Amino acid sequence: MKQKRFILPESEIPTQWYNIQADMVNKPQPMLNPGTKEPIKAEDLYPLFAEECANQEVNQTDRWIDIPAEVREKYAYYRCTPLVRAYGLEEALGTPAHIYFKNESVNPLGSHKLNSAIPQAYYCKQQGVTNVTTETGAGQWGAALSYAAKLYGLDCAVYQVKISYEQKPYRRSIMQVFDALVTPSPSMSTRAGKDILTADPNHQGSLGTAISEAVELAMSTPNCKYLLGSVLNHVCLHQTVIGLEAEKQMAMAGEYPDIVIACFGGGSNFSGIAYPFLRHKLSGEKKNTRFIAAEPASCPKLTHGKFMYDFGDESGYTPLIPMFSLGHDFRPANIHAGGLRYHGAGAIVSQLLKDGLIEATDIRQLDSFAAGTLFAQAEGIIPAPESCHAIAAAINEANKCKETGEEKVILFNLSGHGLVDMTAYDQYISGTMANTGE
Amino acid sequence: MKQKRFILPESEIPTQWYNIQADMVNKPQPMLNPGTKEPIKAEDLYPLFAEECANQEVNQTDRWIDIPAEVREKYAYYRCTPLVRAYGLEEALGTPAHIYFKNESVNPLGSHKLNSAIPQAYYCKQQGVTNVTTETGAGQWGAALSYAAKLYGLDCAVYQVKISYEQKPYRRSIMQVFDALVTPSPSMSTRAGKDILTADPNHQGSLGTAISEAVELAMSTPNCKYLLGSVLNHVCLHQTVIGLEAEKQMAMAGEYPDIVIACFGGGSNFSGIAYPFLRHKLSGEKKNTRFIAAEPASCPKLTHGKFMYDFGDESGYTPLIPMFSLGHDFRPANIHAGGLRYHGAGAIVSQLLKDGLIEATDIRQLDSFAAGTLFAQAEGIIPAPESCHAIAAAINEANKCKETGEEKVILFNLSGHGLVDMTAYDQYISGTMANTGE
Repeated sequence: MKQKRFILPESEIPTQWYNIQADMVNKPQPMLNPGTKEPIKAEDLYPLFAEECANQEVNQTDRWIDIPAEVREKYAYYRCTPLVRAYGLEEALGTPAHIYFKNESVNPLGSHKLNSAIPQAYYCKQQGVTNVTTETGAGQWGAALSYAAKLYGLDCAVYQVKISYEQKPYRRSIMQVFDALVTPSPSMSTRAGKDILTADPNHQGSLGTAISEAVELAMSTPNCKYLLGSVLNHVCLHQTVIGLEAEKQMAMAGEYPDIVIACFGGGSNFSGIAYPFLRHKLSGEKKNTRFIAAEPASCPKLTHGKFMYDFGDESGYTPLIPMFSLGHDFRPANIHAGGLRYHGAGAIVSQLLKDGLIEATDIRQLDSFAAGTLFAQAEGIIPAPESCHAIAAAINEANKCKETGEEKVILFNLSGHGLVDMTAYDQYISGTMANTGE
Repeated sequence: MKQKRFILPESEIPTQWYNIQADMVNKPQPMLNPGTKEPIKAEDLYPLFAEECANQEVNQTDRWIDIPAEVREKYAYYRCTPLVRAYGLEEALGTPAHIYFKNESVNPLGSHKLNSAIPQAYYCKQQGVTNVTTETGAGQWGAALSYAAKLYGLDCAVYQVKISYEQKPYRRSIMQVFDALVTPSPSMSTRAGKDILTADPNHQGSLGTAISEAVELAMSTPNCKYLLGSVLNHVCLHQTVIGLEAEKQMAMAGEYPDIVIACFGGGSNFSGIAYPFLRHKLSGEKKNTRFIAAEPASCPKLTHGKFMYDFGDESGYTPLIPMFSLGHDFRPANIHAGGLRYHGAGAIVSQLLKDGLIEATDIRQLDSFAAGTLFAQAEGIIPAPESCHAIAAAINEANKCKETGEEKVILFNLSGHGLVDMTAYDQYISGTMANTGE
């Protein structure tokens, strides 16, 4: 029997995260204080983030960072996740390519986001924080953090992008099962929200607006920290458990990827699967591996944005981040892949793209759902709208192999399942979905 | 680090199903032809079921039945499933009991139902069938069969219990992603449905009514077979992969269960986890293991039904089955655990209950959701409303251990996740849920 899934025992859960900053020749530029334009130091971030996260954020020297034993213990609730050979998809495409996916959808909250929610909540708890707050788009990050907060006995408040709050009511319910307080953003509960709604009462929200509200709440609440689900260096760091496991599992399969693909919102799942493989490119050991970030055509910062210093949020509360950006006041269309509706890319990914070490491709919404539906029928897993973008990019590469006859090895990250995004599939099946971003 | 999950490699997927009928001293009584009252032979079932399934149904001699290689290959898409030590739940309860659960919720369609959908669809394909039809309650079975039918290129029509069709629209969408035709039952598309609606235009449906419609469609459509998701012997047979894996995994953990628990609708997930362990009780090797079927108080055939020959469906199309039953025209209350809203129990389980080899307990809806919410917060997995009943029963036993100080080993089957049942959790959280069946 051909092996379908490559499984690692609990003992193989990584003991360290991989910090790609240590290996980059051109380090990511520092974040800047928007007032003074001075580089941000870890201490400057302490009021907002857990101290350990702030330290990790600016760490450009330590290649490996220890994962606390208590975090590994919680990782064991769902890790290691399987690496899967997509025989069904290969057959459906008739491609000679070998397609693999890392299945992050098997974890309890249905996406990779838990990989960073657990350590962030843990570090907060360690330093005596009692309240945490965050933003969420589709709700994968909010669901993950709600659970992680519950694990460590923290009170959790989530600002959910209004359009997603309405499109995906089940994700709100999931957060509420874990006792999180969920508010659609922009809301009247913050000054940022009030300002945005005053300017545009019909504002549908974006990750940028929700971040503004969460940051304001964190800054105005005693003993409260803000936790971000993507973009920042320390979040991407935590996600490297994905690629570190995948590396071992690809070795079990006797292969090494020619192409590594992930969908792209702020960069967390792309970084997670890509960086551990990228380290072999940076070392010169594997020079030809390609890395493709698949972003929505309606929010194309990597393919159509500009490299600039920009705010991470709509209202300009955050430090200035060196990023490919569409501008912090960019209003993405209401696509279902709520997790990809973000104007900018993380600093590390932006530097890697500038340096030609990674590539990007943009995918239209209808193409993403066509790919996701084909994948579901072939592999039996209904993918998250975000993940559909990675699948579409993988299918594009597999189809090129069909033309050339090349037996390339393609690895993509299945960042989450789409079981609470079924209204989107309903629209796709019934032919009423807009091809936003065409 | 304490081991949390016990994982088996793909090579350990069982090669044979366990047929408990061969080991029972008192065999289950035969199904009867309702007209002649003669015992049903396999051939009598050929018009309705795949021939191999009909043969398995009446097989009382072969202890082990080979799993076709093609079925094992598809099982490998999600099996082996993990056995998990519920440390989080133990801690939340403060119990000395060791609680384990077999996590059938990790499979792509979110429940154990795929274990029988795959072989049933496979056997149909093998004998040249082109169309399959079935009933579904909450939609777990319908979703599993829709996917299995797609795997083998079969057209699939599903009658979904109307109240579930309305309560759980996402499950309908899931079936439609796999191109199934989904009809709420009772419908006007069959004579059975018309008769039922004529008598009661507001009939909310039940598994009994949906079975009548599906059977009628199968009997009146060329080259079409009817596939059932529970109750029947061959369905329970296929589910024994759950317990066979769990047996090995409990050995990895160095333990053997004192108590085995599953929720109970028609019997498929209970049979799946229980029979492989029951064989050691039947052999005299493990005399004291207890087996508990957890059914809803609103549909209590095991605890309050009578052993009788009864129809499997509302309209009386099926053979007479020897079962604990509430009567085939029993109308269960509209609880959210749609998969448990069935009037009768399978023939094997009914015989085992008669013989005192297993026990049953009934759980009220609010108690089931209290248990499910506690479990979610402790283990990070939102359980299906059906599975909440098993969890409630496990918690009851664990609480007894807390009183007595006994370190009992409790194993329950987590038959599915509740991610598409969030409206039910909404009701529970907001305090608007009815304690139906009190």
